[in-house]
Amino acid sequence: MNKPKIQTCYSPALYPLFHEDDTIVVVVDVLRATSAICTAFEYGVEKMIPVAGLDEAQNYKNAGYLVAAERNAIKQEGFDFGNSPYHYMNDDVKGKTIVISTTNGTQAIEAAKGKATIVIGSFLNLSAVANWLKLQKKDVLILCAGWKNKFNMEDSLFAGALANQLISTEEFYTLCDSTIAAGYLYERAADDLFAFLEKSSHRHRLKNLDLETDIKYCLQVDTLTCIPIYHEDGLIELKNQKHIRAVTISE
Amino acid sequence: MNKPKIQTCYSPALYPLFHEDDTIVVVVDVLRATSAICTAFEYGVEKMIPVAGLDEAQNYKNAGYLVAAERNAIKQEGFDFGNSPYHYMNDDVKGKTIVISTTNGTQAIEAAKGKATIVIGSFLNLSAVANWLKLQKKDVLILCAGWKNKFNMEDSLFAGALANQLISTEEFYTLCDSTIAAGYLYERAADDLFAFLEKSSHRHRLKNLDLETDIKYCLQVDTLTCIPIYHEDGLIELKNQKHIRAVTISE
Repeated sequence: MNKPKIQTCYSPALYPLFHEDDTIVVVVDVLRATSAICTAFEYGVEKMIPVAGLDEAQNYKNAGYLVAAERNAIKQEGFDFGNSPYHYMNDDVKGKTIVISTTNGTQAIEAAKGKATIVIGSFLNLSAVANWLKLQKKDVLILCAGWKNKFNMEDSLFAGALANQLISTEEFYTLCDSTIAAGYLYERAADDLFAFLEKSSHRHRLKNLDLETDIKYCLQVDTLTCIPIYHEDGLIELKNQKHIRAVTISE
Repeated sequence: MNKPKIQTCYSPALYPLFHEDDTIVVVVDVLRATSAICTAFEYGVEKMIPVAGLDEAQNYKNAGYLVAAERNAIKQEGFDFGNSPYHYMNDDVKGKTIVISTTNGTQAIEAAKGKATIVIGSFLNLSAVANWLKLQKKDVLILCAGWKNKFNMEDSLFAGALANQLISTEEFYTLCDSTIAAGYLYERAADDLFAFLEKSSHRHRLKNLDLETDIKYCLQVDTLTCIPIYHEDGLIELKNQKHIRAVTISE
């Protein structure tokens, strides 16, 4: 087959099984890291530097950087932001570089660093990412951040949504069971993602923390068009996107 | 909650994230290792010794044991059996000890060896396993053998079938996303497992090898009542099962 293929990896710990250099890796952590990252760029952030460890995050803080740090869904003491998308909805972030370290999302980015192209996906920029991928004509690996290396529902639903969109126009194919399963799950959930996630463990965890507003925000589909891409040592917004917007509008 | 919990692990490589000593681990490799193992015991095999490596399997062969060895769905040259259930449907196996090494199933058993109780599940003995688990009142971990440490569809469908059966009578609970997702997949597939698996990668692989008959056999539900259990250095049939059969019949 000449069509590019789609695969899905449910855990950063399994990434080495999937890794191929000439692949575009879409990293997703719906609740909430990659939703927050997409939002930050939409609000004008210039660059985001994902780091895995809190020590490294602290070093950046000491050096005068703005730093976001979250663990187990809670903003860490002494840092500037957590991973709520709402933290980034203000003019103060415009033009800034923000260092970010989260429980799952930045660990997934760390796992994928290397020769692959890494972009950041969320329900917020779903179609923007899908349309851009269609133009690249390269193999795609959807890397779910999961929850501490375990499968989680919301990231898998995103994988299903993205894969279904790529396969529906027959420009991609998949023989990957994870991708097919995610597609079925998304079909089941699509009518009401919020209600569907009532049954998911991480969803429960966030509910306990009273983060309903964040969750509802993160489950909105196609409200943003930015595509964060990993370049050199951090994430920047993919430029020259006019064609993406055009494709989105024309569909 | 006092109810025991159910979790599902989609890959032997992720087992260390789930491991808890006081848990019953149900190892499943639907196509075809655990279906073959259940069949072998139904036909009177006394004991099966799962080994991970082919070298170890060869050592047993040299020592005069009957040995089953399969890699990538193909019976290995010089051994007595592959992992087709049909290999074990003869009187020659009665009372015998058989050493077995397969691509995924025996690797999963190897990963789970330790303090946990290990039993062998397949669609063939689904309700027997479910009814026995209900009597144990312990936490359950369903360990899917997958395909070379990747998620696969058929083992996840078994996980969903088993979990749904345990949860339906409200004797177990789950907050595990993998288990919930598997349950949804099984609901989608239950009417026709064979047709559903047409879309799965491993299913394609087996189809290429002309193993339709094996697959149809392995996707039969509740045709057997034996429960292979790991004891000391190998699998034996769980005895004193009258209560299990009684429960099965009364339902």
